[in-house]
Amino acid sequence: MGRIFKERTSVDEALELFFESFSSLSHTEEVPLEACTGRVLAEPVISGRDVPHYRRAAMDGYAVRSSDTSGASPSNPVFLQLSDCVEEGTAMWVHTGAVLPEGADAVVVVEDTVTAGNMVEIRAQVHPGKNVGQAGEDIKKENLVFKEGHLLRPCDAAVLASLGLDMAKVFRKPVVVVIPTGDELVSREKAGQVPPPGMVLETNGLMTALYVEKWGGVPRHTGIVPDRPESIKEAIEANLDADMILLSGGTSVGKRDHAPEVVESLGKLLVHGVAVSPGKPAALGVIGKTPVVCLPGYPVAGLVALYFFVRPGIRKLGSIPKVPEFVFRRRLAAKISSKIGYVNFVRVVFEGDKIRPLTGKAGVLSSVAKADGYVLVPENIEGYEEGQEVDVFLIE
Amino acid sequence: MGRIFKERTSVDEALELFFESFSSLSHTEEVPLEACTGRVLAEPVISGRDVPHYRRAAMDGYAVRSSDTSGASPSNPVFLQLSDCVEEGTAMWVHTGAVLPEGADAVVVVEDTVTAGNMVEIRAQVHPGKNVGQAGEDIKKENLVFKEGHLLRPCDAAVLASLGLDMAKVFRKPVVVVIPTGDELVSREKAGQVPPPGMVLETNGLMTALYVEKWGGVPRHTGIVPDRPESIKEAIEANLDADMILLSGGTSVGKRDHAPEVVESLGKLLVHGVAVSPGKPAALGVIGKTPVVCLPGYPVAGLVALYFFVRPGIRKLGSIPKVPEFVFRRRLAAKISSKIGYVNFVRVVFEGDKIRPLTGKAGVLSSVAKADGYVLVPENIEGYEEGQEVDVFLIE
Repeated sequence: MGRIFKERTSVDEALELFFESFSSLSHTEEVPLEACTGRVLAEPVISGRDVPHYRRAAMDGYAVRSSDTSGASPSNPVFLQLSDCVEEGTAMWVHTGAVLPEGADAVVVVEDTVTAGNMVEIRAQVHPGKNVGQAGEDIKKENLVFKEGHLLRPCDAAVLASLGLDMAKVFRKPVVVVIPTGDELVSREKAGQVPPPGMVLETNGLMTALYVEKWGGVPRHTGIVPDRPESIKEAIEANLDADMILLSGGTSVGKRDHAPEVVESLGKLLVHGVAVSPGKPAALGVIGKTPVVCLPGYPVAGLVALYFFVRPGIRKLGSIPKVPEFVFRRRLAAKISSKIGYVNFVRVVFEGDKIRPLTGKAGVLSSVAKADGYVLVPENIEGYEEGQEVDVFLIE
Repeated sequence: MGRIFKERTSVDEALELFFESFSSLSHTEEVPLEACTGRVLAEPVISGRDVPHYRRAAMDGYAVRSSDTSGASPSNPVFLQLSDCVEEGTAMWVHTGAVLPEGADAVVVVEDTVTAGNMVEIRAQVHPGKNVGQAGEDIKKENLVFKEGHLLRPCDAAVLASLGLDMAKVFRKPVVVVIPTGDELVSREKAGQVPPPGMVLETNGLMTALYVEKWGGVPRHTGIVPDRPESIKEAIEANLDADMILLSGGTSVGKRDHAPEVVESLGKLLVHGVAVSPGKPAALGVIGKTPVVCLPGYPVAGLVALYFFVRPGIRKLGSIPKVPEFVFRRRLAAKISSKIGYVNFVRVVFEGDKIRPLTGKAGVLSSVAKADGYVLVPENIEGYEEGQEVDVFLIE
């Protein structure tokens, strides 16, 4: 009665095996620029026009021939005739962004001028091109503006818009199906009543779906599946059109833990048992070309598996470029003890300019709710001393 | 002809004046937990039940009276009778999460047992409470789970769900109206054709609206308003129901710059001219209780004003708690020169483990598109040397 984990794979090795087993999605779609934030370009963008498309004044002032201003200063001004064109000896008023008149090659800013009648007194010398924006100064026609794989930000949307585009071709978001399993689970539709003893509300599926969405996937949340291999198999088979399959619960080695064996029967079980605490029962597999993550049912362990495997998995599927990880360096307000042989996921709370580790079993989700972030203690370290400076990751 | 800035307010002073002029919104709304990520709790959450609501087995194994296991070890096991209740001398199979039977006070994990017929061999001693999750262990009834003002994450949604809730009472998102002004602007509906010389596509409004959305506001994007005081006044008056008003363009001191004076005529102009480069023409004001930001029309200057004033403004309106700013420490691959008296917003690109500053005028948005982040050079510093380590903020 009771099986044990055949292996305990290191986090790095598990990720490597997982990443080798599936490819990024090649499907693309067109989205309006109004909805492109956070999406990933599926093709390079080459400019079809010069931006700006004309030579413009970069400041309010007078368009001139720069040679006419030679030697001008407050004590030795040059006088030019006001005109509606620019030729030798004349100047023409231009506002910022206006077309620079033919003949002009510079703008004297208004602050360096005084007008009197139809003359303007020029009190500063300007060199050719001064206060002028050349056509194509921002972006030249035929130039590469963004590479394929660029993650679009609001400022990038404005750049695309300035090229005259109204849509962007991006990679489709990965569809991630979230299958909660467990005979003990009660649907949240009945959340108003306290479930009978031995039964609990299904909440991991909600958490998982919201993280999937936050990380750039499209969650599809199925109903609760009982702890029977056939039922889990049916649920998986009904969702093989998804880009990633997440099974929540039933990942350990108990009599009611069937998720890994079902994955093995339908495809390939790559890893069962990861050297992370909490989170050890996590399993990784692939069915056809579809990656599968079995998330432990204990919520904190499930969260760890989400961070360690589902987030990078979605990034790979969706070709989402890695941004530098946000890490804070903080001193510990208390020591951390850790089990050798496991990466330890320690929840911490900010306390002034220090952090304090929180205790709490893997089943205690409220310890995460209290936490601002987490510290990872590597496999080969027994812990950290009070006062030691460590890397802190935010819980988003 | 031409006015000059009456003042040049430091960024910190400008922010302080701005923040004093308006309050956080008190309006609240109920949102389903499925849509609560990123929202801010408008009331404390007190648990209405114990979580878990019953005493449960924390591992698969045998529920026992701990006193029956006294001295048990692999070489000196204790034998208990299998039963469907627990009393002296008996043990009962339980799976993780099952109700702990009355009479039992501990669970022996399955790995420390061997069954033979109707007897179970116990090979480890357990103390009272071992492998048992007490009722309320995660969250006790009547306890404070979240304070008002908590920013909800997916893991928090799961905690709320475990309390039997299906909605969260949150602060309403601030509605931010984005009014692009400028006679030179052409609507993006005509993006297919290159505009005539002197005219440009309106793209700042798109960028602004997308940042507003990203930062937790609800953007309302109006049509283009011409550079006439009456037209700007009408556009503002038609949107006084919004929680924040953004005017894009017309903030400088030229003949066609009317935004600040219109704000002054309708309410109070707090600041016109900020000691930041680019971004100097930015203006801040308040009309009634509604904060107003005049964003420079030059896109990089507009972006700076968005980061410096609109982001913190939305945070204050929406009671969005400040998370620690993400800052990277990086060495400069080239020197930065900066103007004394101005905070200089320098766009930078990651280059290996260093950063390289990008040059580009305030009108050149593509310099932002090329940038990964920015460095702020304080007012009293002339720049940074190559090789110096500086703080880098990401451009999101």
